[in-house]
Amino acid sequence: MNTHARLPDALADALAGRFGERFSTNPAICTHHGQDESSLPAPPPDGVVFAQSTEEVSATVALCRAHRVPVIAFGTGTSLEGQLHAVRGGICVDLAGMNRVLAIRPEDLDATVEAGVTRKQLNSALHGSGLFFPIDPGADASLGGMAATRASGTNAVRYGTMRESVLAMTVVLPDARIIHTGSRAKKSAAGYDLTRLFVGSEGTLGITTELTVRLHPLPEAIGSAFCAFPSIAAAVDTVIQTIQLGLPVARIELLDSLSVQAINRHSKTSLRDTPTLFFELHGSPASVAEQTEVLQGIAAEHGGMDFEWANQPEDRSRLWQARHDAYYACLGLMPGARSITTDVCVPISRLADCIAATLADLEQTGLTAPLLGHVGDGNFHMLLLVHPDDAAMTERAYDFAKRLAERAIAMDGTCTGEHGIGRGKRRYMALEHGEGALDVMRIIKHAIDPENLMNPGKILPD
Amino acid sequence: MNTHARLPDALADALAGRFGERFSTNPAICTHHGQDESSLPAPPPDGVVFAQSTEEVSATVALCRAHRVPVIAFGTGTSLEGQLHAVRGGICVDLAGMNRVLAIRPEDLDATVEAGVTRKQLNSALHGSGLFFPIDPGADASLGGMAATRASGTNAVRYGTMRESVLAMTVVLPDARIIHTGSRAKKSAAGYDLTRLFVGSEGTLGITTELTVRLHPLPEAIGSAFCAFPSIAAAVDTVIQTIQLGLPVARIELLDSLSVQAINRHSKTSLRDTPTLFFELHGSPASVAEQTEVLQGIAAEHGGMDFEWANQPEDRSRLWQARHDAYYACLGLMPGARSITTDVCVPISRLADCIAATLADLEQTGLTAPLLGHVGDGNFHMLLLVHPDDAAMTERAYDFAKRLAERAIAMDGTCTGEHGIGRGKRRYMALEHGEGALDVMRIIKHAIDPENLMNPGKILPD
Repeated sequence: MNTHARLPDALADALAGRFGERFSTNPAICTHHGQDESSLPAPPPDGVVFAQSTEEVSATVALCRAHRVPVIAFGTGTSLEGQLHAVRGGICVDLAGMNRVLAIRPEDLDATVEAGVTRKQLNSALHGSGLFFPIDPGADASLGGMAATRASGTNAVRYGTMRESVLAMTVVLPDARIIHTGSRAKKSAAGYDLTRLFVGSEGTLGITTELTVRLHPLPEAIGSAFCAFPSIAAAVDTVIQTIQLGLPVARIELLDSLSVQAINRHSKTSLRDTPTLFFELHGSPASVAEQTEVLQGIAAEHGGMDFEWANQPEDRSRLWQARHDAYYACLGLMPGARSITTDVCVPISRLADCIAATLADLEQTGLTAPLLGHVGDGNFHMLLLVHPDDAAMTERAYDFAKRLAERAIAMDGTCTGEHGIGRGKRRYMALEHGEGALDVMRIIKHAIDPENLMNPGKILPD
Repeated sequence: MNTHARLPDALADALAGRFGERFSTNPAICTHHGQDESSLPAPPPDGVVFAQSTEEVSATVALCRAHRVPVIAFGTGTSLEGQLHAVRGGICVDLAGMNRVLAIRPEDLDATVEAGVTRKQLNSALHGSGLFFPIDPGADASLGGMAATRASGTNAVRYGTMRESVLAMTVVLPDARIIHTGSRAKKSAAGYDLTRLFVGSEGTLGITTELTVRLHPLPEAIGSAFCAFPSIAAAVDTVIQTIQLGLPVARIELLDSLSVQAINRHSKTSLRDTPTLFFELHGSPASVAEQTEVLQGIAAEHGGMDFEWANQPEDRSRLWQARHDAYYACLGLMPGARSITTDVCVPISRLADCIAATLADLEQTGLTAPLLGHVGDGNFHMLLLVHPDDAAMTERAYDFAKRLAERAIAMDGTCTGEHGIGRGKRRYMALEHGEGALDVMRIIKHAIDPENLMNPGKILPD
């Protein structure tokens, strides 16, 4: 049965005995569970457990630990930095079956879900409650995975990231113990903030099996708009002024001209072929109208053109669908290409400089790489399009991504705003955090997972 | 020179050599530095270093470590749970001299300060920038101390707590190394969230010497109001509905009838002698007017009486001054009394029940204890007034506080929303977090501070 040299027979037998058909070493299943949306070579796990409860996750961890075999959690497989690659083999715990919404509490604006619940599934469950869950990475990721990578998305400028959204967690520790972090109190000063420690730890300190997250009231009115700008600097200045005025925009997205071209082609839109901002405003009808007017004034001051509102739900959906399809639209720019997707985040005062230097660098490389981002937070993404078989091009792209990460860090920013470190960005950890802070992370990892069995080879450089 | 048995002469000599007159073992100075605003007996440190730089803090920690002597940071001495008591003696590092505002960056809405800068000092420095720092615990605390206790205050319902406010820190570790956590990026997915780990760690993992905090645009318009209610339940229901509607209130404060009486007497106000809510709304003039109307409607539905607005700055200041003076006003209810001040935080759906059960319990005890709180967050305080020499009364008060903490925890809340654990609430840590999570905290503490020299005897039960 066990075709994997690294998987001890005794462990395979024990997992098969415990989980029956919900344990598999089928190569296709293992390969699928070793892949995410990164472009790194993907080593598969040696087996997959399809868990249905916290206790089953704990049992899996206990068995793996007894055999010194790594454990890697899997949600929807949509991570971007190789977070779920089985670099040392081991057992993948697929949490997709843990997809129950356990409680929705409208009075408290919170919900408790199993880790496999996806953001869209939660929002479906919230239908009719008057509430929504705002965090929206591109993919329909699982909430457990989103917590693990400290995900965010287009709404973060108004509603925060997973860091601000998770109130409490159930976590299976490396020693298989089940703990609960946080509480449903909106704030607490009771000891070390374990919730925030596990958020963003990418499965390296334990596996999150349940989460309680904050919800928000659906806005009474929503206004959406897009506006073309003569330059990226003009667009960024518009964003800076908007935020300095305290305008509570829900979304401010930047697309560079290349992304706009890609979207026009893919989504049959006819946006002007220059840097463009997409906005969304939430509030009462009167406050949205008022914000609209202020925003339009700011945009005009900075040369904004074609300011267009989409206040009807269907127009708005079309607009944001185009934005959310940008990834696929951009892939269409180079048939047969794949994307090396990277993101950085800088203080907003440095954003225009960072983008300008990055685009100048890009031009030198000859690569095709649309840029788009959650600019209200100073966060932008680049999709580095490469032909999969062109090793030289791929290397140029990784070199470019390296310079981009270093540039963001030099500007007092971070090498990743929302994708996480995974395998791909470990090499920037010392530069970003310094050896001292990195050493504290290592100390914590070693203290909680002394045998390095929880998702080894991620976050911390070897 | 060294009159303290626990302070090794060699250490005293080394500190005197290094800091000259900025090192003191004067008993009055030591006593002052061992006291906070808690009511617990306060053991003084054996010496005090008045530090002026991160390097001096590091040097102090290095010397103390060499002699296995504890180190305790001191800001303004306004903690409420004995956070700075020298329970095992040691050296207090007074950071009040580290009071430089290092940078204010209006474009990025952030500022970097030394840890001794107080919240009022920062807001003075922000004068004219159009920005403010919203976190306002009652005391004019230092930002380092506020970060250490994960402080918040009246604005937290809108602007968050120190957890959400701190972007980056400089920390002196127990081994005297200086590290930097976080960056000025508004969000990051780059590794373990050390910033959030140090926020709320009460000096037990290291000493914060500098912080970068988020700022917010001063609202264009501010509306303040108060409204009396027939019952606490009616007031709380008003709050719940306000928040469910997504009204972005900046402050919602509850005072019970006893607090209102105290305030009327102390601040010469003439509020109706029933549970009262104080509100503050921030926004554009139009949006404040609109929110006002909605709020007034909600309050009326719940029997709100005497809804009064204070839109003039002087009326508003008077109103909020009365609220901020509530502590002293309440002390005036029982001449010669001191207050055992406690706070809890529960999910807002449980708030009315929690308060009702607490007031029923209070009645049984015969204690005098006004109740007030940041009810938008489900957070309330009680000032348990006791005669300092009445040991039986003091014991009754601590027993009552214990039941209150246990009640909040049983309601999926926390034993402290904003005061921290210190010495006073260590006994609730296992009940609130469970042995498993508490053990993870112990593992982290031991890994980072293996000799338990950083503020020993705090947060973690012995």
